[in-house]
Amino acid sequence: MQDIQLFHNENKGKNFLNRLRGKKPLFVCTIGSTETGKIRGISAAGQNPEITDYTPPADIELLLLGKCKCIEGVPITPDGIPTPALVTMSALKLADIPALPVNAGLVIKPQVPFLDVGAEPGRDIRTGKAVGNVEEILNRAKVAGEILSKTVDYLVIGESIPGGTTTALGVLLAMGVDAKGKVSSSMPGNPHELRTKIVEEGLKTSNLKFGELKNDPIRAISCVGDPMIPTFAGLVLGAAPTVPVLMAGGTQMTAILAVIKALNPKVLKNIAIGTTRWIISDTTSDLKGIVSQIADVPILAANLNFTNSRFSGLRAYETGIVKEGVGVGGSSIAALVKSKGTITHDKLLAELERNYERLMSIKQQDQQR
Amino acid sequence: MQDIQLFHNENKGKNFLNRLRGKKPLFVCTIGSTETGKIRGISAAGQNPEITDYTPPADIELLLLGKCKCIEGVPITPDGIPTPALVTMSALKLADIPALPVNAGLVIKPQVPFLDVGAEPGRDIRTGKAVGNVEEILNRAKVAGEILSKTVDYLVIGESIPGGTTTALGVLLAMGVDAKGKVSSSMPGNPHELRTKIVEEGLKTSNLKFGELKNDPIRAISCVGDPMIPTFAGLVLGAAPTVPVLMAGGTQMTAILAVIKALNPKVLKNIAIGTTRWIISDTTSDLKGIVSQIADVPILAANLNFTNSRFSGLRAYETGIVKEGVGVGGSSIAALVKSKGTITHDKLLAELERNYERLMSIKQQDQQR
Repeated sequence: MQDIQLFHNENKGKNFLNRLRGKKPLFVCTIGSTETGKIRGISAAGQNPEITDYTPPADIELLLLGKCKCIEGVPITPDGIPTPALVTMSALKLADIPALPVNAGLVIKPQVPFLDVGAEPGRDIRTGKAVGNVEEILNRAKVAGEILSKTVDYLVIGESIPGGTTTALGVLLAMGVDAKGKVSSSMPGNPHELRTKIVEEGLKTSNLKFGELKNDPIRAISCVGDPMIPTFAGLVLGAAPTVPVLMAGGTQMTAILAVIKALNPKVLKNIAIGTTRWIISDTTSDLKGIVSQIADVPILAANLNFTNSRFSGLRAYETGIVKEGVGVGGSSIAALVKSKGTITHDKLLAELERNYERLMSIKQQDQQR
Repeated sequence: MQDIQLFHNENKGKNFLNRLRGKKPLFVCTIGSTETGKIRGISAAGQNPEITDYTPPADIELLLLGKCKCIEGVPITPDGIPTPALVTMSALKLADIPALPVNAGLVIKPQVPFLDVGAEPGRDIRTGKAVGNVEEILNRAKVAGEILSKTVDYLVIGESIPGGTTTALGVLLAMGVDAKGKVSSSMPGNPHELRTKIVEEGLKTSNLKFGELKNDPIRAISCVGDPMIPTFAGLVLGAAPTVPVLMAGGTQMTAILAVIKALNPKVLKNIAIGTTRWIISDTTSDLKGIVSQIADVPILAANLNFTNSRFSGLRAYETGIVKEGVGVGGSSIAALVKSKGTITHDKLLAELERNYERLMSIKQQDQQR
C-alpha cells in the first residue's frame, strides 16, 4: 500500500511530490466563520450550530499548543467524533512542521498568535452579501504569501471554516463550474439538497445566473462566498510564483482553484491539491470531477486508514464522516515526504492514538468535574 | 573601514556574526503605541505627538509595500527628517530579506498582514498601569517565536514604538538597572530630565523603588513598560533556544534583555544586539554601560555613515538625530552578512538614496495636490 496516492495527472503529481521530498514546509491554516455555517444541517464542525464559532480557533489552538484553550476538550461532531485537527496536529508534531494560523474572518479569536489580513466573519450567503472586503483581503493575503514564500521551501495551506463547502459551491456555480451535487460534506449523509437550496437563494438574491461571474471571482466571493476563500487564494497567489504550494483540503479547494485561475493562471503549475483517501473514495462527492473542469493540477491523497485503530472515535472516520478539514490530507502528505521514509502511515496512526488518548481522557475528566 | 563594528565582548560578537554569514534571516518588526509616547517632547517619531499613532503602521507599510498607505508620504520627525524605516526597507530589499510585522499594541492597524499576539496599546506610565495583559502577550509571542524559528536560520527583531526609550527606562529602573541619563533618544538633544520625571512619577504611583522588581519583569512591564517589550521578549524567548536572534535596536533593547535574563537566562548565549554607529558614538546615551550591567551579550554596530549623501535629509542622521528605530542597525547587519560581501555599505547607501528620491518626490507631489 502506497502512503500517498496520485490522481488527476499522475505524472505531474509525482513530479510535484518529488520536489517536496526532504524539503522544509510551513503549514498555514486559514480559519474563519460565517453565518452560513450556522444554518442547521450544514456543518458537522461542532456539536451544534451555535458552537461552530469556537471550532476554528479551538482547532488551531490544538495545532499550536497540543490542547484547546477557548473550549474544554477538543471540537467534536454532533456524533462525538473528534476534529480532524487531531490528525493534523499529530502529523505536524511527528515531522516537526511549524503551523501558522491566519484569521480568515473569525468571530472568536484563538488564544495563540495568528496572522491578520483584514478578514471579518462572513455573512449568510442567502443575503447575497457574503463578504465585505474581498479585494483588500486578497491583496493583504498575497503580501503574506510573498513573505512566507521567502522563509521556507514550500507551503501547505489548510482551512477550518464551518459550512465551507456550501460557500465553495456558491462561488463555483457563480463562476460556471458544474459542482451541484459534487461537493463533499463533513455530515453523515451529504446534505446536497439543503446546500443547493441555500446557494440558489444566494444567487437569486444577488441576481446571478450560473457562470455569470466566470471572470469576476471577487464579486462571486463577495456575493456567495466566504472570507476564507480570498485569504487562502491570496496566500497561494503570493507564494506560488516562487515556491510549490500544496492546497490542503477537499472540494472546497476547487472554489479557490477557480479564483486563482481567474486571477493568475500562470501560478497553477506550482500547485497541487493534497487531500485524504476518504475524499477520493467518497461516493457522495466528486473532487476529480470538479477539478477537471478548472485546471490540470494534480491531486495527491494521503492514504489514511483508521480501520484498525484502537478507538471507535477514529474508526468512525472510515464510515465517511468528517473526511477532511484543517488540512488533514495535506499535512499528512507533508509529514510523510519530509522524513524521506522515516515517518510512515502506521507511525502517524500511533502518534494520533497517543494524542487521542491524552486529549479524550482530558475531556472525560473535564466532564466528570 | 569595517562595515560592521564589534563592541562588548568582541570575540563573542565575531562568532555570532560568523554564524549568520550566508544564512537566511527573517526580519520581525514589533510595532506598537502608548499614551506615554504622546507626552510632548518625548518622541520624534512623527511630526507631532498626535500623529505618532500612525508612525509604526506607516513604517511597516513602507517595509512591506515600498510605500505607506495609512499616511501620505513617509513618517518624518518634527524637523522633517524621514523615518529610519526607509533605511531598513532599503537594506531588506537589497538582500531580499522578508519582513513580518507583529502588532505590539497598535492604535492604528497597518493595511498589510501582521501577526497578532493579543497586545493592546499601552497606557501612560504615570498611571502605574502601563500594560494590561503582559503574561498573555509574553506567552503568545513565545509561541510565535517558536514557530518562526522553524522557518528560517535566524531572526532579526526590531521595533517601532514612539516613546519607547522612556518606557524602557521605566522597566530598567524597576528592575534595578542603573540607566538614568543613559538611554538614547530620537529627539535632537536627549530629554533626560523630562523622561526621568515621567518614569519617577510612574514608579511613585506604582509604589515601586529602584530595583524592587529585579525578579518580576512581568510586573515591571505592567506598571511602567509598554506592550512592545513583552512582545519582543516573548519572540526572543521562543526563538533563541534554537536559532540565533539579533535584537535590532538601541538602548530599548536593554530593557528587553533584562526581562529575558529574568525569565530564561540560558537563551542569552544565542543573542546579540545589532545597532548603528550613531548609537555607539552618541555621547548623550550609554548602550554599552547599560548592557554590561545585565548580560555578557555582544553588541554589533552597522557602520552606517551618511556624511556623503546627496540628500540633506539623510546627512541629518550624522547630527545625532533619529539614530535607531525600525531595526535599522540590525537589518543593515543582516543585509551585509547575507550577501557574503556582495552588499556593501556604499551599495546600501545608493539603494537608500534611490528610495529616498522616489518617496520624497511622491511626498512633494502629494503636498502639491
